[in-house]
Amino acid sequence: MTDGPCCAPIAREPLGEADAAELATLLKAVADPVRLRLLSMIGSHAGGEACVCDLTDAFDLTAPTISHHLKVLRTAGLIDGERRGTWVYYRIIPKQVARLGALFTPLAEPVSA
Amino acid sequence: MTDGPCCAPIAREPLGEADAAELATLLKAVADPVRLRLLSMIGSHAGGEACVCDLTDAFDLTAPTISHHLKVLRTAGLIDGERRGTWVYYRIIPKQVARLGALFTPLAEPVSA
Repeated sequence: MTDGPCCAPIAREPLGEADAAELATLLKAVADPVRLRLLSMIGSHAGGEACVCDLTDAFDLTAPTISHHLKVLRTAGLIDGERRGTWVYYRIIPKQVARLGALFTPLAEPVSA
Repeated sequence: MTDGPCCAPIAREPLGEADAAELATLLKAVADPVRLRLLSMIGSHAGGEACVCDLTDAFDLTAPTISHHLKVLRTAGLIDGERRGTWVYYRIIPKQVARLGALFTPLAEPVSA
């Protein structure tokens, strides 16, 4: 590693089987264009939360399809939803998003082997 | 967003369709337990590079299966390989790994809407 940022936690020590399986599940939840867009729409919405009605309107997809994708994100612990009146309102769970970031973010100080 | 780190780039503004599609492809490349382990083994290996022979020995998988996973990582631009003599030696491309990290890493300074 002679150039570029060094070393993200993923490159600090070999991942064990159990950790790798759990992280792969979390990554699969975000490895989809619609779910990435949903996540960014929810997180960037005024007040940090978005009504399912706003989300569905933004896509050329059926409501059940959007619901499926929201469920995947929710099951992965990346978003949480709360019903208020007619609609469910979603917000990001920052801790789980930050976990993904930490895996791939280089340390400021390179770690020697 | 009243608690926890705020706001990862993914939550700063809605992702466009093209960006979301490209990032989903990159995330799919890492959303697999074997590929996560390969990435961490390559990055944490002495000298920052690992021989395909070392990688194959660490898994209970056939050489063609390991080769397939390495090819997925290479096609995604996450690793590079160089043949020297009998073996191919792989190293991480830090810039592409850091790109994933940046997507999910909260900013130190919260961004106001």
